[in-house]
Amino acid sequence: MVHLRMTMLASSPTIAVIGTGALGGFYGGLLARSGQRVHFLVRSDFEQVARHGLRVDSVDGDFVIERVNAHDSADTMPRCSIALVCLKSTDNEVLTRLIPRVLEPGGTIVLLQNGLGEEERLAEIDRAANIVSALGFVCATKVGPGHVKHLDYGSIRIAHYRANQGRAGITPTLTSLAELLERAGIAVALAEDWLEARWKKLVWNVPFNGLSVVLRADTGQLVGHAPTRELVRELMLEVTAAAAAEGRAIADTFVDRMIADTARMRPYLPSMRIDYDSGRALETPAMYRTPLARGTVAGVAMPRTATLAAQLEFLATSRHAGGPPH
Amino acid sequence: MVHLRMTMLASSPTIAVIGTGALGGFYGGLLARSGQRVHFLVRSDFEQVARHGLRVDSVDGDFVIERVNAHDSADTMPRCSIALVCLKSTDNEVLTRLIPRVLEPGGTIVLLQNGLGEEERLAEIDRAANIVSALGFVCATKVGPGHVKHLDYGSIRIAHYRANQGRAGITPTLTSLAELLERAGIAVALAEDWLEARWKKLVWNVPFNGLSVVLRADTGQLVGHAPTRELVRELMLEVTAAAAAEGRAIADTFVDRMIADTARMRPYLPSMRIDYDSGRALETPAMYRTPLARGTVAGVAMPRTATLAAQLEFLATSRHAGGPPH
Repeated sequence: MVHLRMTMLASSPTIAVIGTGALGGFYGGLLARSGQRVHFLVRSDFEQVARHGLRVDSVDGDFVIERVNAHDSADTMPRCSIALVCLKSTDNEVLTRLIPRVLEPGGTIVLLQNGLGEEERLAEIDRAANIVSALGFVCATKVGPGHVKHLDYGSIRIAHYRANQGRAGITPTLTSLAELLERAGIAVALAEDWLEARWKKLVWNVPFNGLSVVLRADTGQLVGHAPTRELVRELMLEVTAAAAAEGRAIADTFVDRMIADTARMRPYLPSMRIDYDSGRALETPAMYRTPLARGTVAGVAMPRTATLAAQLEFLATSRHAGGPPH
Repeated sequence: MVHLRMTMLASSPTIAVIGTGALGGFYGGLLARSGQRVHFLVRSDFEQVARHGLRVDSVDGDFVIERVNAHDSADTMPRCSIALVCLKSTDNEVLTRLIPRVLEPGGTIVLLQNGLGEEERLAEIDRAANIVSALGFVCATKVGPGHVKHLDYGSIRIAHYRANQGRAGITPTLTSLAELLERAGIAVALAEDWLEARWKKLVWNVPFNGLSVVLRADTGQLVGHAPTRELVRELMLEVTAAAAAEGRAIADTFVDRMIADTARMRPYLPSMRIDYDSGRALETPAMYRTPLARGTVAGVAMPRTATLAAQLEFLATSRHAGGPPH
């Protein structure tokens, strides 16, 4: 295994960071700082990043990547061995065109997103690629063009995707990726089962992301009031029921621990709330509608989750329609 | 029956209006204008009403009651034959002291409130009283001290309360009360079954009151977006399921008609939204918690209603705690 890791590192990967927002800027910046060859696809901040580089103000130490391989189009990017997808899931339709352009044959796609259902689509786009599910446990925000603020946490959980809801276990692809990330100073957890990892992340995401938007509240307020703490728990149990129907039993003790951990952690605005406040699209499809649809197929009722999804869709629409301030 | 009505009108009722807010000012004002002897218990606006009277700006014609029998305490009120309770249900605890003080033995309590469960408590306070459930279909707001604005609608549905969830039918008490109200220019609908009337009102109240607060939306916006229109319908079906469990079957066509009627009517802010915006207590206990508790007893799941109740309780608390603006 050690030999294998050395071999794969020796192959000297090139990394395409697709989407240079908070996550892409932070993790991509760390990888670049560690000496990796990283190419960034930058949409809105291209001029700034190409000229002045990438700035990360981090609780773990600020840094600047002065010379960034920035691209405003996939056409100028070299084919890379790893594509680190840091888009919002709502922008995933561009991957159909991008992935074949930037990923070398048999390369690895690392899907750093919340939600459910996107690996299956990636597998249709590129049948030869290794697909790795990645879940960021990080509090980072873009505070300006090419400027990311890393506020807290920072670890990544990765799991190798396997078709037909299979368990891939710990693969060489996964361990070499873990080493790459760890050498960049990123804490990594390996998971044997990508689908279980996704559902477990949803256990937290479904209650806290939606309620933070609908109730204009942070995580501390939501777990600090008895009625919403109970609602958080009920929402989590709807998610674990749907997970169980896909063969991923998640114990109630995990739910209890999520709530206790959230009560202990510093009050936090989940990514959907930051998206909402910034006028960006909400990840309601991947974070709510796909889990709901999968629950429905399996005969699992998720009425509280459905309530939250409808509320989020309403707020997203009324916001864009210039509705009343929320 | 005609003879009976004449007899009861001839007895010349005195009316105690308990709570002179939007509803008490509007309906009490109409009764006073029609020549009835009306005594108003006025809490916050006593000085204004005692000196300058009661002003109603109404779509049906403005009017002023210049000389009002205003009382700032029940101690100065005469015993009346009718007590028209126009308090918010959240203030009902004062009725334990007030009713025995202002109502003559065997008098009639008209409970003009939303929600469920309050008639039973009134029956414990005064076992000799006639209790009439009253539901206002009216859009009225207090716009200043002793000053009510009547924007739309105005009818009242009344039903005679019967203990043990019984049906009272159309009683002499009800017909004489109807005549009194109609002589004041108030459109009245008589209902044979108080409990069915309450549940039917809840079919509308549960979705529109709560969602108008949580989503900062009026009725037109809520039925104008597909996800919330569907959510409104699901909430209504939870209410009809609980009603059916108490022997009050409400057809799905009633639900469809409620939604269609709401889509046609002028966009409207439900009373709970006005309460929320005015910093008043929300009627979550009578409008949500009691129906939920009754559903639970009957084995009816109401998860969307429970979600809304928890959200309202959170917003009420975070508002009072000086939380983020909603």
